[in-house]
Amino acid sequence: MTSTPKLRLGLPKGSLQETTGKLFALAGYQIGFSGRTYYPSIDDSEIECVLIRAQEMARYVQQGVMDCGITGLDWVLENGAKVDELADLVAPWPNYRPVRWVLAVKEGSPFRRVQDLEGRRIATEGVGLTRAYLEKHGVTAEVEFSWGATEVKPPILADAIVDITETGHGLRANELRELDTVLVTTPRFIANRGACADPWKRAKMERLVMLLRGAINAATRVGLMMNVRRKDLDAVVKLLPALATPTISALADESWVAVNTVVEERLVRELIPQLSQAGARGLVEYPLNKIVD
Amino acid sequence: MTSTPKLRLGLPKGSLQETTGKLFALAGYQIGFSGRTYYPSIDDSEIECVLIRAQEMARYVQQGVMDCGITGLDWVLENGAKVDELADLVAPWPNYRPVRWVLAVKEGSPFRRVQDLEGRRIATEGVGLTRAYLEKHGVTAEVEFSWGATEVKPPILADAIVDITETGHGLRANELRELDTVLVTTPRFIANRGACADPWKRAKMERLVMLLRGAINAATRVGLMMNVRRKDLDAVVKLLPALATPTISALADESWVAVNTVVEERLVRELIPQLSQAGARGLVEYPLNKIVD
Amino acid sequence: MTSTPKLRLGLPKGSLQETTGKLFALAGYQIGFSGRTYYPSIDDSEIECVLIRAQEMARYVQQGVMDCGITGLDWVLENGAKVDELADLVAPWPNYRPVRWVLAVKEGSPFRRVQDLEGRRIATEGVGLTRAYLEKHGVTAEVEFSWGATEVKPPILADAIVDITETGHGLRANELRELDTVLVTTPRFIANRGACADPWKRAKMERLVMLLRGAINAATRVGLMMNVRRKDLDAVVKLLPALATPTISALADESWVAVNTVVEERLVRELIPQLSQAGARGLVEYPLNKIVD
Amino acid sequence: MTSTPKLRLGLPKGSLQETTGKLFALAGYQIGFSGRTYYPSIDDSEIECVLIRAQEMARYVQQGVMDCGITGLDWVLENGAKVDELADLVAPWPNYRPVRWVLAVKEGSPFRRVQDLEGRRIATEGVGLTRAYLEKHGVTAEVEFSWGATEVKPPILADAIVDITETGHGLRANELRELDTVLVTTPRFIANRGACADPWKRAKMERLVMLLRGAINAATRVGLMMNVRRKDLDAVVKLLPALATPTISALADESWVAVNTVVEERLVRELIPQLSQAGARGLVEYPLNKIVD
Amino acid sequence: MTSTPKLRLGLPKGSLQETTGKLFALAGYQIGFSGRTYYPSIDDSEIECVLIRAQEMARYVQQGVMDCGITGLDWVLENGAKVDELADLVAPWPNYRPVRWVLAVKEGSPFRRVQDLEGRRIATEGVGLTRAYLEKHGVTAEVEFSWGATEVKPPILADAIVDITETGHGLRANELRELDTVLVTTPRFIANRGACADPWKRAKMERLVMLLRGAINAATRVGLMMNVRRKDLDAVVKLLPALATPTISALADESWVAVNTVVEERLVRELIPQLSQAGARGLVEYPLNKIVD
Amino acid sequence: MTSTPKLRLGLPKGSLQETTGKLFALAGYQIGFSGRTYYPSIDDSEIECVLIRAQEMARYVQQGVMDCGITGLDWVLENGAKVDELADLVAPWPNYRPVRWVLAVKEGSPFRRVQDLEGRRIATEGVGLTRAYLEKHGVTAEVEFSWGATEVKPPILADAIVDITETGHGLRANELRELDTVLVTTPRFIANRGACADPWKRAKMERLVMLLRGAINAATRVGLMMNVRRKDLDAVVKLLPALATPTISALADESWVAVNTVVEERLVRELIPQLSQAGARGLVEYPLNKIVD
Repeated sequence: MTSTPKLRLGLPKGSLQETTGKLFALAGYQIGFSGRTYYPSIDDSEIECVLIRAQEMARYVQQGVMDCGITGLDWVLENGAKVDELADLVAPWPNYRPVRWVLAVKEGSPFRRVQDLEGRRIATEGVGLTRAYLEKHGVTAEVEFSWGATEVKPPILADAIVDITETGHGLRANELRELDTVLVTTPRFIANRGACADPWKRAKMERLVMLLRGAINAATRVGLMMNVRRKDLDAVVKLLPALATPTISALADESWVAVNTVVEERLVRELIPQLSQAGARGLVEYPLNKIVD
Repeated sequence: MTSTPKLRLGLPKGSLQETTGKLFALAGYQIGFSGRTYYPSIDDSEIECVLIRAQEMARYVQQGVMDCGITGLDWVLENGAKVDELADLVAPWPNYRPVRWVLAVKEGSPFRRVQDLEGRRIATEGVGLTRAYLEKHGVTAEVEFSWGATEVKPPILADAIVDITETGHGLRANELRELDTVLVTTPRFIANRGACADPWKRAKMERLVMLLRGAINAATRVGLMMNVRRKDLDAVVKLLPALATPTISALADESWVAVNTVVEERLVRELIPQLSQAGARGLVEYPLNKIVD
Repeated sequence: MTSTPKLRLGLPKGSLQETTGKLFALAGYQIGFSGRTYYPSIDDSEIECVLIRAQEMARYVQQGVMDCGITGLDWVLENGAKVDELADLVAPWPNYRPVRWVLAVKEGSPFRRVQDLEGRRIATEGVGLTRAYLEKHGVTAEVEFSWGATEVKPPILADAIVDITETGHGLRANELRELDTVLVTTPRFIANRGACADPWKRAKMERLVMLLRGAINAATRVGLMMNVRRKDLDAVVKLLPALATPTISALADESWVAVNTVVEERLVRELIPQLSQAGARGLVEYPLNKIVD
Repeated sequence: MTSTPKLRLGLPKGSLQETTGKLFALAGYQIGFSGRTYYPSIDDSEIECVLIRAQEMARYVQQGVMDCGITGLDWVLENGAKVDELADLVAPWPNYRPVRWVLAVKEGSPFRRVQDLEGRRIATEGVGLTRAYLEKHGVTAEVEFSWGATEVKPPILADAIVDITETGHGLRANELRELDTVLVTTPRFIANRGACADPWKRAKMERLVMLLRGAINAATRVGLMMNVRRKDLDAVVKLLPALATPTISALADESWVAVNTVVEERLVRELIPQLSQAGARGLVEYPLNKIVD
Repeated sequence: MTSTPKLRLGLPKGSLQETTGKLFALAGYQIGFSGRTYYPSIDDSEIECVLIRAQEMARYVQQGVMDCGITGLDWVLENGAKVDELADLVAPWPNYRPVRWVLAVKEGSPFRRVQDLEGRRIATEGVGLTRAYLEKHGVTAEVEFSWGATEVKPPILADAIVDITETGHGLRANELRELDTVLVTTPRFIANRGACADPWKRAKMERLVMLLRGAINAATRVGLMMNVRRKDLDAVVKLLPALATPTISALADESWVAVNTVVEERLVRELIPQLSQAGARGLVEYPLNKIVD
Repeated sequence: MTSTPKLRLGLPKGSLQETTGKLFALAGYQIGFSGRTYYPSIDDSEIECVLIRAQEMARYVQQGVMDCGITGLDWVLENGAKVDELADLVAPWPNYRPVRWVLAVKEGSPFRRVQDLEGRRIATEGVGLTRAYLEKHGVTAEVEFSWGATEVKPPILADAIVDITETGHGLRANELRELDTVLVTTPRFIANRGACADPWKRAKMERLVMLLRGAINAATRVGLMMNVRRKDLDAVVKLLPALATPTISALADESWVAVNTVVEERLVRELIPQLSQAGARGLVEYPLNKIVD
């Protein structure tokens, strides 16, 4: 039992956790987040999981305490961590969509550009990100670590903030105005450099990443099946998006063929009326679990 | 940005809201009901949504404040609204099933027919519906608007009620007896008559209705795939419901064919044992997202 | 109406109830557990349901009060019930997985084998199971019925317990040590012997069991579709699990074929990388509702 | 049993209900709002309770269906009901504080005074109140009944609204601006005129009102006890609010007296430092249940 | 530490638990029911608590595993336990009020008296209680242990039941009719007979019982203070319930006295109007924590 | 309006918030924490409140952004803030009791004393506190800021931690062993030094602190009233705790006196049996709101 090699995988505690668990389930791995433990079970005896805050993940992956982990690009940069990125896991799910760190000030305040904040106080949970950003713009300001509720600090407790937002709703609700985007971040699969150099760990991580991507691909796509007269086939196939190679199969009735393909779900609502008009019949859309090209 | 034409769509606030959101998601539209706003977002820049009570929807669609909306037939009639109906959206989901407005009295009361209520007090949320119904039957009674909890009013606060019921459970739980069905109602897609006359709005609404119907169709049907020996094919196909045209494809083993079809889910539990007996093998039922014939 | 024959079906109240409802839904039957009633509705006019505690089910099936029912093997044995078992419904869902009755003592206690409990007090909800087990091992001990919270009784309120566990977590959390497994139990479909002798009831129960099994089969399997060059077909097919007979269909492009098969979901994460390497393209995994071989 | 005279008391269903239950409990009456019944129990065999919507209460009290009831002044006026008011039950509890019906428009709209709404559409749940108010100001406008969510209707669905607000927060959150206060309302104990003329019912209602008022009085007041040297007594007593007649009792140590009084809780935080400075010692504040002067 | 004598106190797990915790808090003992532990903490180093199901309490107290405990009289009798009862803790709180075990049958069934159940099946959680009751009435019937939901068993799963009820609501909701009361039960403080013979344990239990009773007394009573002219004193005192000895203190104004007394809360609503009429002024009701006469 | 002087008061966001709101309510101030605002309302027009994280409070009070605030001693020290402490608000309520920062390591680890951690990694939210503590003990170690879940870090993610604990339960649940107490902390009322020098602000803060303390005093004490024969008075009074000066009042019956006093609630359960034995009669314990000596 002790001789099995193990991949130590850091899973993000907090806002990314729930979606991460669902992503692994879609990819074929059952993770058991039971109650309070920080050592979730996984149904793969070659993997050991540890729950780690997204903010601290890159630090522990760099140190080699973990072989790999999932965390946001923002916290990789905030920690200045020297790790390898094996995949961008951006996906259309809660907390897996792109989010932005923005520089914002109170509506009605006189600040218009980052340069106007010279000498001012900026509150943020991302002190490192903010300092790097200010330096790039040649601005000197006091950056204070914020323990939370950053968005309510201007104008009394800070002159400006650098904070995270997905849609901008939270900023507007607090009557803040964006000055600039500091960073766009998405979840990443990161790996320790030593682990990448180990052939067994490298192969293990690559298979895992292939399945995670297969699940993410399926989340945004659907299957489409339809019957088409041979004479209409060209017109129908021409409507299908270029990257989808449709599977065309013979039917018992030789004047018809069946067309089966995979398309992005967001295109379907435009595509269906067009296919129908081009002669597709018995058009059926069905869900997918995984797609590996 | 301001030059994009827009379709103003009223979504029903209240009991129909949650299912309406799911219906649109199935049809391919993401509606964001965020917290308290009455202006939900939708991922189609050509549509603007407003949440409106089902009771008031037809009024605002008639006035042209909205181009179209979803509400029950009951409230269209209650308002006497002059609007066009583009689709009956009846579906096997909560609050989208048919519901009835019934005339009911207390168990043990002497009223047997609507005529027995001459001169009596009837409480209802649908004052207009009730008056029209009484008039049709030549009965004169006092119709009082009820602010809610109508079903507990007889016999103290009213002699009879006209109230909504899906299964009749609520009536029996309150020891009420139905005298008559006043109206059967289902959710409808209604449109302003001016909007129907505008070609762009008309086409936009028709595509939307096609996708909503495609999703409703898929909700009650499933796909069935099976392999069949050529010699058994006729027997198998004969078992399939008439309206389903099965797709029959050639297999590598030429003595077999694959049969793929769509059937109503409620028939499957009878069909599967019969198909199995007729020679179908490797019978698989799978879910569908949309069906457009 | 009174002349329709009816199958009286006992559904298990308690921990098995929720999953049982979902299993029937997957099999195509809608059961309505409305609030407090013990007579759930079912959308099959030939079946009447009654909610009965799993502990009492076998008693009422044996007596013929019920024609059939679902309960654990443990309670069939505890009651010593003379009933027929038509199916083992073990499934990968909450409370439908195998669970064990174990003999356990406090960590640090001197008991090592069941024989060490001679003359001691054992608390359990399964007094009959425990007595049968002790008898088989030739041990005499006092078996006390426990009204609950059995796992906290050692060492003050009992010397040992016989209690149910799925993963052993609960035992360890209470610092208990397993001495032996008394019984492994799973949910069973049991039938009254008289009902089995009645042809109509027998056929009705067999169709029901076929659909329940079809749904359970689908819960652990998925569909896989892929396109393969004819020259790679043998290599690809060889990778597929033996019991899956793939459906191979001709494509318009004659140098390719489409392969469609059903595999156990737990194998997919190993299979996909191998299929990809063997030449499978456009690999798609999709969900299934029912499988009947 | 049937010969006991009964007082039929209407209790307000909805926002006033919970506080009404607590008020009766403080007054010494236990009302049992069990689940779904509209006929709550009360531990006084001479009273029968019915839950009635606040909007409909005055109608049923006027008709004599109820002898008395609790509802807001607003709904008494909206119904134009001819009933007697026995008490204003305003109290510092949720929904028992004064609330205002206000005329409001969207921020940024051109309307400044009620007169600017001539010919416009006003949405409100209080159609009668609003019409009376407009008439008083000589304004003609279209008043539309609103089924709810009135505050989100301007500017699309209405030009102005007449709606209820306690603090004005809700209006500001919806970016509405108040033009005028239409009515200030508080909960009232109302009685049918015939019931008031019945000596037994009259006396019963008056005792009930005395206890309800005793409980309301106690909710805003506290007891204060302190010891004072006889020489400081005048200075201390002078600080006490005029309406409180303190009880001054002799102590074993004759140079001291004990002072016990009742004061409004909101004054205590100013009073305690002053009393302490004037020589009060061992100052203790304690809670009260009822106060009847 | 090990030399401190300890009183082992069993606290009832289940329906009595929450109120028991509050009763001890009122008596001055803080019990910490933290999450899942069955060994609650108590802020008295001379007491050790164990949570035990009410059904099993008497068994463990009789065996001396516990020195004392709180459980219902019903379970003392069901177990036929030989223990001493130190107090009846009946109190006006949830689950501490008297409850009845009743014999009940389905409405409409032919059974009128216990004698009609000769040879029938009776389901109950109190098998011992029921057998003793039947024996007393000379009736022979089959008594089956019920694992729960006893009230829904007639008429299909049992002919009659013996079940617990506080108000009878549950019986009526299940359309059951009471035939007889089998037992009235209240919570009791029971003690092991050996523990009662130990002077230290005896004294410890008696002080504990005194404080529990002091808290229960206060729960149903309130303090009343009022000022009365000396000439009205007799009339006022005569109105006070006999068992309350009022404290009459001299006031600075010698023509008045202050009267302070304790009365049952349920009498207050009758008393206050009478006292007011007899000349009591500045009448104040205030809450109490404990009363020890 | 602008000329009213204002006291800017920081209220602690987070674990202290709820109890702080209740403390102010007991002291006579209603704070309105409505939903999401960070500027709670308070019913004193001379005070302005801001919600601030306990960790940041001292920083903003030192800077003069706030005049005063409530936060833990720990965060005052962590920030090294130069502020005045006006009161220790320790109280027997959730999060207002003393809590400890402790140095802890994994059970079974070789570390016994702080000196054993030389060169090791210590994770903590209190980096400043920990560095000061290590320096005092002459130990050099790497102190890493922990974003949370500190207690699960040993032994993988850290060698030791410095973390907060009230009872030690959390440490034991995570199998940690305490090496030392780093700090005992309680909530403090802190003030800006400039604000203390302003007479109006100083007086305002002192009155506020007097009322907060009055409420805290009452939370742990109760009133006791009893009647005593003059001949037993000395014996009774001798039992009362020294600091309580009882109020002894004359009764109409001159052989008795009434004794009224305030005692700590935790002493009552010992006191009542003794007072009863010494001759106290009609002993009544009652609750208090505030106590100012």
